[in-house]
Amino acid sequence: MALLRDDPAKEVTDHGGSLLRAEALFPGAPKPWLDLSTGINPHPYPLSDISASAFQRLPEQAQLQALMDAAVEAYGAPDAMNVAAAPGTQILLPLVAGLAAGGKAAVLSPTYAEHRRAAAIAGHDVAEVSDFRALYDADLAVVVNPNNPDGHVTARTDLLHLAAHMRAKGGLLVVDEAFMDVGPRTEALDGDVEADGIVVLRSFGKFFGLAGIRLGFALAAQPTADILRARLGPWAVSGPALEIGRSALADLPWQAEMRERLTRQALDLDTLLAENGLTAAGGTPLFRFLRTVDAASLFRSLGKDGILVRNFRADPHALRIGLPGGDGEFHRLAQSLRRWRKAAGQPQ
Amino acid sequence: MALLRDDPAKEVTDHGGSLLRAEALFPGAPKPWLDLSTGINPHPYPLSDISASAFQRLPEQAQLQALMDAAVEAYGAPDAMNVAAAPGTQILLPLVAGLAAGGKAAVLSPTYAEHRRAAAIAGHDVAEVSDFRALYDADLAVVVNPNNPDGHVTARTDLLHLAAHMRAKGGLLVVDEAFMDVGPRTEALDGDVEADGIVVLRSFGKFFGLAGIRLGFALAAQPTADILRARLGPWAVSGPALEIGRSALADLPWQAEMRERLTRQALDLDTLLAENGLTAAGGTPLFRFLRTVDAASLFRSLGKDGILVRNFRADPHALRIGLPGGDGEFHRLAQSLRRWRKAAGQPQ
Repeated sequence: MALLRDDPAKEVTDHGGSLLRAEALFPGAPKPWLDLSTGINPHPYPLSDISASAFQRLPEQAQLQALMDAAVEAYGAPDAMNVAAAPGTQILLPLVAGLAAGGKAAVLSPTYAEHRRAAAIAGHDVAEVSDFRALYDADLAVVVNPNNPDGHVTARTDLLHLAAHMRAKGGLLVVDEAFMDVGPRTEALDGDVEADGIVVLRSFGKFFGLAGIRLGFALAAQPTADILRARLGPWAVSGPALEIGRSALADLPWQAEMRERLTRQALDLDTLLAENGLTAAGGTPLFRFLRTVDAASLFRSLGKDGILVRNFRADPHALRIGLPGGDGEFHRLAQSLRRWRKAAGQPQ
Repeated sequence: MALLRDDPAKEVTDHGGSLLRAEALFPGAPKPWLDLSTGINPHPYPLSDISASAFQRLPEQAQLQALMDAAVEAYGAPDAMNVAAAPGTQILLPLVAGLAAGGKAAVLSPTYAEHRRAAAIAGHDVAEVSDFRALYDADLAVVVNPNNPDGHVTARTDLLHLAAHMRAKGGLLVVDEAFMDVGPRTEALDGDVEADGIVVLRSFGKFFGLAGIRLGFALAAQPTADILRARLGPWAVSGPALEIGRSALADLPWQAEMRERLTRQALDLDTLLAENGLTAAGGTPLFRFLRTVDAASLFRSLGKDGILVRNFRADPHALRIGLPGGDGEFHRLAQSLRRWRKAAGQPQ
C-alpha cells in the first residue's frame, strides 16, 4: 500500500509491530506469532469495563482535566496547565516541531525515525547528528531519552544546559521520553518544563502495554501547552482512552511494581542472550539492543520460528528485542535461540 | 477550567453535550439528564466485543486500509487514496485550514464555531459571511452542508461552481458534511473530491452515535489526502475505532434503516413541537432548529426538568433540540413541553 510517497517527509519507516509484514517475510512460520519487534510492555494494565457512555458521548472537559491531573502525578510535571493530552504521541510530533520557527532542526541519531519526518513536515531542514554538541546550532533540537533503540541516556544536566541555550536564542528542545517510565527517572525533564524552550513527550501506550488506545502527552511551559491544546481541540482523546488513562496513570503502586518486574525480566533476557553468545549493547527494561555481525541470520532464524524482532535497514548489525510476555514465550525464545546457535555453530 | 484563553483562536465555544455544565446551570434538576443538546444519534451502532489486541497492539496499516475502503463505500468517495482517517473530525480542522496558504478565510455563518477558530489557528484572517457569494473572495471557503444548527442545505451545483473558482485561483473549499449521513445526499461532494481544491469532512460519531471513539475523515484529491495522512501519522486512529468504524461503515443496511428511523422520529418530534406552539425552522433528522422569542424561557423550563437542549449565546431566540432516544425519553420531553406551555400560557 503506497499510502505515503513522493516526498521524504511523507515516508513512514517500518517501526516493528506489523505481524502482516512478518507474515509476508516468513510465510511458513508457526502461529501464533511471538511479536518481540516493539518496545510495548507485554503485561498490559488490566482493562476494566469501559462505560458505554465513553464510546457514545463526547468526552467531557472535566474528564480531560482529571486525565491531565493524573499525568501530572505520574510524570512529575509542575501543573495540569503544563500538559497537553493527545491521541498518541505520534500525532504531536509535527505539531511540536512546528512550534519552532522554520529553520534548522537537529535530531540526535540514530533514533526513532519519525522525529526526522515530523521536523521535515514542519518545514525544517533536518540534520541527523551523532554528537550532542551539534544540537546547539539548531533551532529545533530533538533528543530521545532514553534513546530508542540503543537505550542511551542523556544526562538531565546536559539537557538543561542545552535548553537554556535554546531558550536564549528562541529555539526549542524536544525531549522524547517515550521510555522514561522505565528509564533513569532522575534524568527526566518533566519537572523542568515551566522554563520556556522545552517540550517533553510522554507515551502512555508503551509502558502500560496499551498502544492501541492512542494516548500521549506533551509537557511544556503553559503558553506552549495552551497552543498545543488549542490545536488538538476539545475532544482529542477518546472516551475509552480518557477512562483507561486516568485509572492507569493514577495507579502508582502498579507502576512501581511493573518497573521492578520489567527490570527483572530484562535481566533474565540478558542472561538468555548471554547463554547464546549475545551481549546486549544497551536498551531499556522494555527492550534490549544487540549489535552483532550475526544480526541478519538471527533475524531470519527467529522469524522462521514465528518470532519477530526488529531489524534496521540502515544498521544491518543491529537488532532490538522486546520482552517476552511470560514463561511460555520466554521458553519459546530460548528454544529458538538455541536452535539458531547450533545451526550457526556459535560458541556457547 | 481555563484550558484555553488569551487568544480568540484558542477559545472553544460551548458545543452542547456537557452534563457537568448542565448540572451547574440546573443543580436541582431530576436525574438522569436527558441530553438533547447535541446532534449525536441516540441509537448507537451496536458495540460488539472489541478484541484485546485492539487496545494493546499498535494498529496495523492493513486495518487502516480496510477502514478507508469501508469509508469509500459508505461515503461514495472515488478511492481509498482520497481518504484520510483521523481521531475525530475536530483535530482535522486546523490541518485542513492550513492547506490553504495563509490569507483570507470565509465561513458561511452562522454555523459550527470551530471552523472559525481552526482557520484563525492556521493563520487566516477569518470573516463570518452570511452570503454564499462572499465566499468567492476568500482563499479558504468553509461551508457546513447541511448546516449546523439550522439545517440549511447548499446545492451541490453551487458548491462545484465555487470549487472551480477556488481551484482556478489556488484556493480551497472545505465542505463539512458532518450531518450529510442524514442529509440530502444528492448534494454531497464526496464523489467530486478527485478534482483539486475541495476537502470534504465526514464525521463518524454523530450518525453512528459513537462520538466518544473519535473518528472522522477528510476526503480530498490524492495529493492533498497524502499530505493529511503524512501529518496524521501511521497510528492516528485507535484500535477500537478501527474495529468499530470498519464494521459500522460497511453495514449499509443498518445505515439505510437508521436513516428512515431518524427521519420518522424527527417528524414525530416536529409534531410534538407543533402541539406546543413551536415550529421547527429547520434542522436535520438528527436535530431540530427552533427560532422563537420564548427560547430563553423554554431552555430554562426544560433544564429544570432535567432536559438539556442547546442554546446560543449569539442568537438568544434560537434553540437546537436533538432527538429523544425512545418512547420514555419522548414522553418525558412531551410532559416537560406541556408544563412549559401551561406555565407560559402559550396558545395551543
